Amino acid sequence: MSIVRHADGTFHWEGVEVLEYKQEGAAPFKDVTRQVLFDTTDPPAQLRYFEVAAGGWTTLERHNHVHAVMVIRGKGKALVGDRAYDIGTHDLVSVPPMTWHQFHAAADEPLGFLCLVSSDRDRPQLPAEHEVEAISAALKR
Amino acid sequence: MSIVRHADGTFHWEGVEVLEYKQEGAAPFKDVTRQVLFDTTDPPAQLRYFEVAAGGWTTLERHNHVHAVMVIRGKGKALVGDRAYDIGTHDLVSVPPMTWHQFHAAADEPLGFLCLVSSDRDRPQLPAEHEVEAISAALKR
Repeated sequence: MSIVRHADGTFHWEGVEVLEYKQEGAAPFKDVTRQVLFDTTDPPAQLRYFEVAAGGWTTLERHNHVHAVMVIRGKGKALVGDRAYDIGTHDLVSVPPMTWHQFHAAADEPLGFLCLVSSDRDRPQLPAEHEVEAISAALKR
Repeated sequence: MSIVRHADGTFHWEGVEVLEYKQEGAAPFKDVTRQVLFDTTDPPAQLRYFEVAAGGWTTLERHNHVHAVMVIRGKGKALVGDRAYDIGTHDLVSVPPMTWHQFHAAADEPLGFLCLVSSDRDRPQLPAEHEVEAISAALKR
């Protein structure tokens, strides 16, 4: 891996591939990309960059592994548990184990965030269709 | 820990203490602060934010643990091994094991960066005084 990977001013990095957010399954999301910025063995961790286009959102999901998030571009909302939080650049979000969560970009601006996770992590669980409305209620308040 | 810690626009966060960069020893540095943004058990890692004031620098050191760095404020130089790299906002820096490294802010701008490390890490080694000039030679080129 190169020592330095320069950013190009549009949240892309030299030698870092822009990936699809999900590559399998039917998880609902809208306009999200994923880039793996660091993949280390000690700590066994990945630092990823997700970008949600204006008006887009990530999958509503939960899992045992935690997320440590820092917004680095734009603004939006984070649904974590039964609350929705307004978030903007440099805000930090901790997602505890087995807590429903979803990130929404603002209508007029993308939302880009770093997400630190363990390399060894469990698969996300998705809500049943009839549960989605109740879990997402805080986004409407 | 709170779910969301808002940034205040000056690279401080709600409930995050601004710490001295080093609390012991005689390691030479200038105008550096440290903030621990995340401290997780799985992965066993810390994400810290260091800020070097304009014209300042971190300690020249090496250790077995790796650093995964993202600049999020300003610009400067990273000395890594026998090269000095110009770095600016959102650039990524990987510091391999046992590689001399030092971060310098530009003369007229602070340098703020995230640094991901293992929670379980070895102590830094410092160069002998007579080695410093040779190790830092790339900064002068």
